Amino acid sequence: MKTKLALALVAATIAGSAAAQMKPEDAIKFRQSAYTTMAWNMGRIKMNIEGNYNKEDVIKAANVIQAIANSGMGALYLPGTDKGKGWKDTRVLPELFTDKEGVGKVAGAFNKEANEMAKVAATGDAAAVKAQFGKLGESCKGCHDNYRRDEK
Amino acid sequence: MKTKLALALVAATIAGSAAAQMKPEDAIKFRQSAYTTMAWNMGRIKMNIEGNYNKEDVIKAANVIQAIANSGMGALYLPGTDKGKGWKDTRVLPELFTDKEGVGKVAGAFNKEANEMAKVAATGDAAAVKAQFGKLGESCKGCHDNYRRDEK
Repeated sequence: MKTKLALALVAATIAGSAAAQMKPEDAIKFRQSAYTTMAWNMGRIKMNIEGNYNKEDVIKAANVIQAIANSGMGALYLPGTDKGKGWKDTRVLPELFTDKEGVGKVAGAFNKEANEMAKVAATGDAAAVKAQFGKLGESCKGCHDNYRRDEK
Repeated sequence: MKTKLALALVAATIAGSAAAQMKPEDAIKFRQSAYTTMAWNMGRIKMNIEGNYNKEDVIKAANVIQAIANSGMGALYLPGTDKGKGWKDTRVLPELFTDKEGVGKVAGAFNKEANEMAKVAATGDAAAVKAQFGKLGESCKGCHDNYRRDEK
């Protein structure tokens, strides 16, 4: 059910006028920027877990990840952007454009864990945040392992 | 009062361990990524205003901008990062690192308008979104005009 919903949302967004007017290189740059922004905030949460825990800092970081996770990034995977350069060459694998069911599953899992991360962060419970951070990281890997080329 | 608070938050974050462990080139890359992610979402809102208005799409975009606006990006302006390269050469002007009062004002104005944008987006009132989009864009310009080099 969730997978179907995620796919429907992705399809609806790709069909929208926004995507139609976007240059392929911009779409790639936007998705690289969004992932890098999430990486910054994953790093912040990690440092809070490993160092001095600051509740507000973790909330801010988790809110960024949540908002981007729910932003509808599927719209940035325009047809033809399996190759190309944004800030750098895209590392996406062609399977991301063809394995709709698999992509729907990893995307749905990531959304779920990102939403849960924001909830847990709001409690300020460092141990719970650490546990959820692990789950969120795993859900990121779900896509990386299957749909992303390794770094050169 | 808001200016003072913004400055205190920036100072507190810069002093934190996260910033201390970050490489200058990563800090520049993270801020360029965050701004580019906001640019993507500003573009989405603009296309909704000018084209077929989709309430959910605008909410998602506004939420991303709001979360990044409130993320504490001041922590990414590490001492020494007035020059340097992330994805590309930084365009920040040295004044951003010295004009604390001016920066606090434009940062506070941007936060305020980004929070308001998310509120207005949630109503689905396209005319109100259009008006608030103008205010938000002006608040972005507040920093661009004073603390950013023009594109080469």
